[in-house]
Amino acid sequence: MVNYPIGIKNKKKTVLYKNRGMSLESLLNDTNEYYLINNIAVIYKKPTPIKIIKMDEVKKRITNAIFDKPSTTDYNGIYKGSYIDFEAKSTKNRTSFNLNNLRPCQISHFRKILIQKALAFLIIEFSMLGKYYLLPAQKLIYFIDTKSKKSIPLDYIKENGYEIKRSINPPLDYLKLVSFCKIK
Amino acid sequence: MVNYPIGIKNKKKTVLYKNRGMSLESLLNDTNEYYLINNIAVIYKKPTPIKIIKMDEVKKRITNAIFDKPSTTDYNGIYKGSYIDFEAKSTKNRTSFNLNNLRPCQISHFRKILIQKALAFLIIEFSMLGKYYLLPAQKLIYFIDTKSKKSIPLDYIKENGYEIKRSINPPLDYLKLVSFCKIK
Repeated sequence: MVNYPIGIKNKKKTVLYKNRGMSLESLLNDTNEYYLINNIAVIYKKPTPIKIIKMDEVKKRITNAIFDKPSTTDYNGIYKGSYIDFEAKSTKNRTSFNLNNLRPCQISHFRKILIQKALAFLIIEFSMLGKYYLLPAQKLIYFIDTKSKKSIPLDYIKENGYEIKRSINPPLDYLKLVSFCKIK
Repeated sequence: MVNYPIGIKNKKKTVLYKNRGMSLESLLNDTNEYYLINNIAVIYKKPTPIKIIKMDEVKKRITNAIFDKPSTTDYNGIYKGSYIDFEAKSTKNRTSFNLNNLRPCQISHFRKILIQKALAFLIIEFSMLGKYYLLPAQKLIYFIDTKSKKSIPLDYIKENGYEIKRSINPPLDYLKLVSFCKIK
């Protein structure tokens, strides 16, 4: 189910410190693969939903299809009995994260899983700053419900979220920080 | 993300006791929709992974693709803080469930999530008997590891699993039984 980006197909044979400059998705795939191999957690990126319009039944091939919009987040799984759920986004903005990066159904999904006490969060890459942050979903929802702004300022993310430091193996050890997402 | 089967697109307007004779997948989609609407749990069927071979970049359409084999189970989500994960299968056999219905990577996935204390299970429909059973993943793994049989006898499923009674709303209330999947 993990979709390996081109260039890391032989990942297990390559050295992981080569991943500088990799996309956020690749870093997370690598991290999740590390968690999986080492029995730390089981977290997958969900497959992209595709709407099939036409099939060639004889050749068992899809000959016409379009991308469908997922109604949930991209990643979910389990870590020490807890349900983990997150969305990962990269922005080129240096001072804020535009909420248009999230679809209304994704925000609604966060609300629903918070009721169920999920460890839910957003991972935001500020690509021009080379920084990665984990923002608990409850802090995201609080911002949406109390501020009438279209963007979350970086300062709010720094105050209410946690920086994920790049490391070698795994490249983006976000599970270190998920205990901060616990709902009392 | 929920793929509505044909005929229940206007589900919210239709009466759910019309679902006799529905496929296992439709029953589970209805049940999960019921859980979602009533804030009982958030459980989705994962999209079928599709391997894209050719894209029409101008029309943004997929013109050649094949079905990929998922490496995990079909359903996951959260219920009262706990991670839920299951596979659903229907068999026409009256006396046993053939283990060929599960792929080795799915069994391996069950092993990995059991380490993380998931509430993991198999839902089996015996379609010729009109019966539905929930078999905890640890009982499935125990059978695989201790018996050298290719099929699980119905008697083993009855002794180690739990019958899911058909009801009106939701049609297949499997969450009633998941506490039996808890790993001590």
